[in-house]
Amino acid sequence: MALKKKPVTGMKDILPREMEIRDYVIQMIKDTYKTYGFMSMETPCVEHIENLCSKQGGDNEKLIFKILKRGEKLKIAEATEEADVVDGGLRYDLTVPLARYYSNHSNDLPSPFKALQIGNVWRADRPQKGRFRQFIQCDIDILGEPGNLAEIELILATTAMLGKMGFRNFTVCINDRNILKAMAAYSGFAEKDFDDVFIILDKMDKIGPEAVAEELMELGYAKENVDTYLKLFEETPEDAGGIRFLKEKLGDFLKAETADSMEMIMSSVEAAKEADFKIKFTPTMVRGQSYYTGTIFEVVMDDFGGSVAGGGRYDKMIGKFTGQDTPACGFSIGFERIVMLLLENGYEVPRKGEKKAYLMEKNMPKEGVLKVLGLAKKDREEGKQVLVANMKKNKKFQKEQLMGDGYETIIDCYADSVDKL
Amino acid sequence: MALKKKPVTGMKDILPREMEIRDYVIQMIKDTYKTYGFMSMETPCVEHIENLCSKQGGDNEKLIFKILKRGEKLKIAEATEEADVVDGGLRYDLTVPLARYYSNHSNDLPSPFKALQIGNVWRADRPQKGRFRQFIQCDIDILGEPGNLAEIELILATTAMLGKMGFRNFTVCINDRNILKAMAAYSGFAEKDFDDVFIILDKMDKIGPEAVAEELMELGYAKENVDTYLKLFEETPEDAGGIRFLKEKLGDFLKAETADSMEMIMSSVEAAKEADFKIKFTPTMVRGQSYYTGTIFEVVMDDFGGSVAGGGRYDKMIGKFTGQDTPACGFSIGFERIVMLLLENGYEVPRKGEKKAYLMEKNMPKEGVLKVLGLAKKDREEGKQVLVANMKKNKKFQKEQLMGDGYETIIDCYADSVDKL
Repeated sequence: MALKKKPVTGMKDILPREMEIRDYVIQMIKDTYKTYGFMSMETPCVEHIENLCSKQGGDNEKLIFKILKRGEKLKIAEATEEADVVDGGLRYDLTVPLARYYSNHSNDLPSPFKALQIGNVWRADRPQKGRFRQFIQCDIDILGEPGNLAEIELILATTAMLGKMGFRNFTVCINDRNILKAMAAYSGFAEKDFDDVFIILDKMDKIGPEAVAEELMELGYAKENVDTYLKLFEETPEDAGGIRFLKEKLGDFLKAETADSMEMIMSSVEAAKEADFKIKFTPTMVRGQSYYTGTIFEVVMDDFGGSVAGGGRYDKMIGKFTGQDTPACGFSIGFERIVMLLLENGYEVPRKGEKKAYLMEKNMPKEGVLKVLGLAKKDREEGKQVLVANMKKNKKFQKEQLMGDGYETIIDCYADSVDKL
Repeated sequence: MALKKKPVTGMKDILPREMEIRDYVIQMIKDTYKTYGFMSMETPCVEHIENLCSKQGGDNEKLIFKILKRGEKLKIAEATEEADVVDGGLRYDLTVPLARYYSNHSNDLPSPFKALQIGNVWRADRPQKGRFRQFIQCDIDILGEPGNLAEIELILATTAMLGKMGFRNFTVCINDRNILKAMAAYSGFAEKDFDDVFIILDKMDKIGPEAVAEELMELGYAKENVDTYLKLFEETPEDAGGIRFLKEKLGDFLKAETADSMEMIMSSVEAAKEADFKIKFTPTMVRGQSYYTGTIFEVVMDDFGGSVAGGGRYDKMIGKFTGQDTPACGFSIGFERIVMLLLENGYEVPRKGEKKAYLMEKNMPKEGVLKVLGLAKKDREEGKQVLVANMKKNKKFQKEQLMGDGYETIIDCYADSVDKL
């Protein structure tokens, strides 16, 4: 037999204990985001290959699971390259499909549209511990809102959700692509070099300022520019004061409205937040995706050592589909990381109803079975989680297993005493 | 621009109104099935192509979306057939993946294992109204239980769920592959002909007994056998009496335990059912899948004109993976059909909290925004669904749209009066 028992490379079967947490987290996400006015929506897991390979996805475009054409369209023997045999692919994120969806349905959607998407995405990444080739993403996006109310609401909703999940003392890091650019321009870098400079700046957290300066100089940038740049980061406080400092310091390089808007986002979030967290202006934060056009943000947790959520403004993507730009801003939670943290911390999903098991002796006559089913029916109507099972030879072992699965009440049912139950 | 706005052929974008119903139905399914002791589990959407093409899937194996090999393993120019370029596919059902999952994890699972799976499956069917190439299946299965307690619990759970969804007066049709075979054998058909006979018998509902007899005779079966066969169906009542009748009539062709078990399933379901439905012995019911080995059942609704759920016992599938047979029985709900019925009936999802919108005038100063965010925070903590949005030029139209979306309370917020809110 050529049948394979293991799942395909890099993807995983999910056992009931993990599923219980996943189901619970998804429900909490949906309930919380609804109180912020977000609406569930969904796109197919399969997308046109043209849309997936449209340069919106950066490096993810190299990781697409591609889908073979079908029927007469497929001519394997004549094919010389991938494009000849492929017409679709599994989505690698939820943002490109959302832009397509909005461009297709904007007439039937409210404006602004507050979208909630929870769904699987696929990336043929090199398999490694804790990273899978199929994983759930969970995004909220506000489309059609040019003002910073979008950023404020996205941050409030995401942090409220994390708070409900029991997370405390985390940090929301915030920056703006236009502040990034203004700091580089002020320091004397040419616009064509920005992306290369930002790739190095992005390592600041890990390698520190000296190493960043070194790498920039290795690439041939003038010492004067590098020194000015690094000094700027040193002098900028990581709070609203930092924004005011830059507004004055960078002069015409930074639009006053960009600085004012950022300050307003920070103070509004501070004032209206539900959860226990800090918001930190983080001028060194870059975020990879090339589609961001303004504000960018991340949620960082100390006990995780990395970001558990991230997002930003991308005002130019929908225009690629419609020819007309639409303001857009989104925040994506690292669902798998959050589940991993909860699993590692031994998180217990709050129980909904008592768990109760009826074990029936072998060859229980029909009247006995009916009696037990009647009792189970009553329990179930009361919301209890009820298992009706046949008793095994090794009843002790069976009961231990049931107790391990959380069954608090286990009732032995014998033919000669079942009517007393 | 080569970007495409429409979803790929045969798959659909789901708008918020439908998503609300889908989310609600999924939650109700999970909650109800949990009270019957079922546990959520999941397998990847992508399966090994070997498993998908193992003849478990019948005609569905012709409809697989196949996934291209990646990296060095892919040699397009040298390839002459599909098998050269493909290593995986999107699952076409949840049963084959469940059998793989159980064979891989049975040591970590309770026995019997009561599994609940809700997930997308894909079939490259000819696109037609109301049928999509990606759709949700929702299955419960009991693995490791040889007795008819499995059938009873599956039918009770599925019908309880349909009842909670508001469905009434539906019918559970039940039959057994072994009764089918016994009736054919009694009538004189040879075992090798059974499958061909059953394909014609399956049309009884649509074309009636005369046409069935005609088609059987066209295939060259003896008139005597055909007459005996048809008379048998005519004489068999569609209730427990029909089973007792066949038990006597078919003699050694039908094992007494098969008949007794079927009678017990019917009377137990009648006695313990939560919902309002009939259970009907339906000796003409065949059900296509070749993997069924015993009981088979379907839920039929008059106002739908077809089956909305179906399942049966398949005791031989897991053995294909492990070499050792494991009793298995499952019931699958037609999730998409149920959602379609609810949508057509104008079903309204019970509201969880009041829907409230704050509309802020243009350029509201920061203090005003903070005041509104504070009010929204309080409402949200109380579980209300709150939208904070900027007022549009055409406020009247904006309000009409919001009321259409179910916002009961809409509050205008102006800078000069916001402190009175």
